[in-house]
Amino acid sequence: MCGVRCVRKIIEEIKENIKMSKPISILGIAGSLRLQSYNRAALRAATQIAPEGTTVEIFELDGIPGFSEDEERNPPEKVVELKRRIREADAVLFVTPEYNYSIPGVLKNAIDWASRPYGDSAWSGKPAAIMGASVGTIGTARAQYHLRQVMVFLNMFPINQPEVMIANAHERFDAEGNLTDEKTKEFIRQLLQGLVDWTRRLEQQGGS
Amino acid sequence: MCGVRCVRKIIEEIKENIKMSKPISILGIAGSLRLQSYNRAALRAATQIAPEGTTVEIFELDGIPGFSEDEERNPPEKVVELKRRIREADAVLFVTPEYNYSIPGVLKNAIDWASRPYGDSAWSGKPAAIMGASVGTIGTARAQYHLRQVMVFLNMFPINQPEVMIANAHERFDAEGNLTDEKTKEFIRQLLQGLVDWTRRLEQQGGS
Amino acid sequence: MCGVRCVRKIIEEIKENIKMSKPISILGIAGSLRLQSYNRAALRAATQIAPEGTTVEIFELDGIPGFSEDEERNPPEKVVELKRRIREADAVLFVTPEYNYSIPGVLKNAIDWASRPYGDSAWSGKPAAIMGASVGTIGTARAQYHLRQVMVFLNMFPINQPEVMIANAHERFDAEGNLTDEKTKEFIRQLLQGLVDWTRRLEQQGGS
Amino acid sequence: MCGVRCVRKIIEEIKENIKMSKPISILGIAGSLRLQSYNRAALRAATQIAPEGTTVEIFELDGIPGFSEDEERNPPEKVVELKRRIREADAVLFVTPEYNYSIPGVLKNAIDWASRPYGDSAWSGKPAAIMGASVGTIGTARAQYHLRQVMVFLNMFPINQPEVMIANAHERFDAEGNLTDEKTKEFIRQLLQGLVDWTRRLEQQGGS
Repeated sequence: MCGVRCVRKIIEEIKENIKMSKPISILGIAGSLRLQSYNRAALRAATQIAPEGTTVEIFELDGIPGFSEDEERNPPEKVVELKRRIREADAVLFVTPEYNYSIPGVLKNAIDWASRPYGDSAWSGKPAAIMGASVGTIGTARAQYHLRQVMVFLNMFPINQPEVMIANAHERFDAEGNLTDEKTKEFIRQLLQGLVDWTRRLEQQGGS
Repeated sequence: MCGVRCVRKIIEEIKENIKMSKPISILGIAGSLRLQSYNRAALRAATQIAPEGTTVEIFELDGIPGFSEDEERNPPEKVVELKRRIREADAVLFVTPEYNYSIPGVLKNAIDWASRPYGDSAWSGKPAAIMGASVGTIGTARAQYHLRQVMVFLNMFPINQPEVMIANAHERFDAEGNLTDEKTKEFIRQLLQGLVDWTRRLEQQGGS
Repeated sequence: MCGVRCVRKIIEEIKENIKMSKPISILGIAGSLRLQSYNRAALRAATQIAPEGTTVEIFELDGIPGFSEDEERNPPEKVVELKRRIREADAVLFVTPEYNYSIPGVLKNAIDWASRPYGDSAWSGKPAAIMGASVGTIGTARAQYHLRQVMVFLNMFPINQPEVMIANAHERFDAEGNLTDEKTKEFIRQLLQGLVDWTRRLEQQGGS
Repeated sequence: MCGVRCVRKIIEEIKENIKMSKPISILGIAGSLRLQSYNRAALRAATQIAPEGTTVEIFELDGIPGFSEDEERNPPEKVVELKRRIREADAVLFVTPEYNYSIPGVLKNAIDWASRPYGDSAWSGKPAAIMGASVGTIGTARAQYHLRQVMVFLNMFPINQPEVMIANAHERFDAEGNLTDEKTKEFIRQLLQGLVDWTRRLEQQGGS
């Protein structure tokens, strides 16, 4: 007969099995519209660094008008798509520049749209990770903590570590926007692995 | 002969004179596009409550596209106008809703535009005050502290007190968006008076 | 033979079993030394409201000197005890007053002690919840968000909802410090249940 | 006769005169008890870098017990002295380490004591500046923004710029705790000059 110990062993095996086989999909959103943005470049790099069995897909923020509550039940097509893609994804990766010591308006505006109408937020319960790049030395820290506070209301679950704050970005990407700094690649790899592990940890318990 | 004491008295008289006569102009910016927004209504109320000799003018945020650094040297007409009007004003009044525990993207985006390009921010050195309205009980506190952090980078000078956080806004305005609550009017009056006093205090020393 | 579906059913049964049987222990820390503190009273209330099978124990912060890195390898007895009790607990409940728009120094100091020396923090990986009481209307919101930022570094996992901010505390407790307001009791009950569920959700995956 | 223009000229001369002659006293408070603290060392350096006619005096935080509201009307001698020295100073310089992404408990506790009892805060209206040192790369930024939020309640007036965040502190001080890095000295000099200018700008209008 298969007793508790035996069944536990089976459980562990199945869990391992699930972990190995189930692909995790991450939706990546960079908070900049600039063509040669280091943050968009960092997100492109993330799509290539993703761990085996994980996909990082990009959602671009161009073409989203300013949010108005008057329009929230009749959102622009781009917002409908954003909400659909958030919902399809297992987890979200924010790649945020820092503008004026906080989240760029462009990124916050997209977050606002996808959180509405009340009761129909696309963000709720999603595991998340944050990274950011800047040419300065603090590397978007201030924007990241504001974003974490936003995620409390959104009921998202950001990982704590590692925190990826890419300072001196101009030294870490080449002229074509390719990430060339190996240390930064390794941080992004750890961030994605951390997000994948965290997503599986939360998912196996079902729902939020 | 007119000694130090005598001259000081003259100075005080002149100062008083200047205070009485010089009108202060405040540019008011509400961070919502919703037609019946309580924050826009609160700003309209402020235009009527302004102390003798003070004007509060409104800048509307509709029609401003998402900021892109690629366009910062060729900004839309509305942004050119925003920067001009900030510069013409003696002080700025932000009236901010709270979206997702932070500054609305729409307001932050306007702030981002008017802060650029580097070296040409319209905000630098401006005295400022903040208020906000919400239907909840915390009344935009979280958005206001994020906005204060933003103002550190913008090199603006917000007053500390009073902090005007209009909670339960639906009970304080009538159906036409008129502020009917006398206590709230009094808070706004104090806020505007505080901003006027602070503006004069900073201005008489010249420059920032 | 017991196929995948059969084993899954067994797994679910065992999980349910574990959930029912395993008691969760919560360490409660109130950030005030005042005898008649509403926050200490709220924590006492929490010990009585705890869900079936859950214990909330209290750690008092009196007698902890100011943290000095010079003493971190030779901490006072009280700090040794604090770290031991954090480690023994499955989860942590912070009950924080708000002093000067942030975390009380007394509470932050205890957090600092228990986070040191480097590599020997007692907080890492702990699920957590926050509540707070104040006589004002904002009810410690500002302190709670600062505490959440602290928990990013501590690598703790706070629940997002519900947020328990007990405003107008003087109307909700009697003269003996008993919580008399039923609505507040219900919020605390939800907070504790949320923390218990979150703790089980994280624990079953093992490790942090 | 001395008309408006003539009197204005006299005013300017007198102002210049006042600026030249009136010494500004700054009370410096470092938020660490560690003997070889980089923050205490940075504060010592500031006492030597102070502009002509400005004094920076140090208040040490050792020996202050945890704040309790029960004791606020009967504070320890050290707190009485702290409040007296804040009041005597024209401005305050905080030198803050960052512990766990926020203000050290030791510093926050001293701030809490000196802000009480209600109506008898020693901080109100004081001009202030902040700096901080850390061995990491972000250099206490997170603690500094929390401190700025605290100062809103305290009704203090911190300067915005420069922000002095001394990263990689171990490379900038010698073994005896002397600041050896010229660039950092220059930043501190600018910070002190900025605080002196700001203090004069606010003071000449009288009161807060």
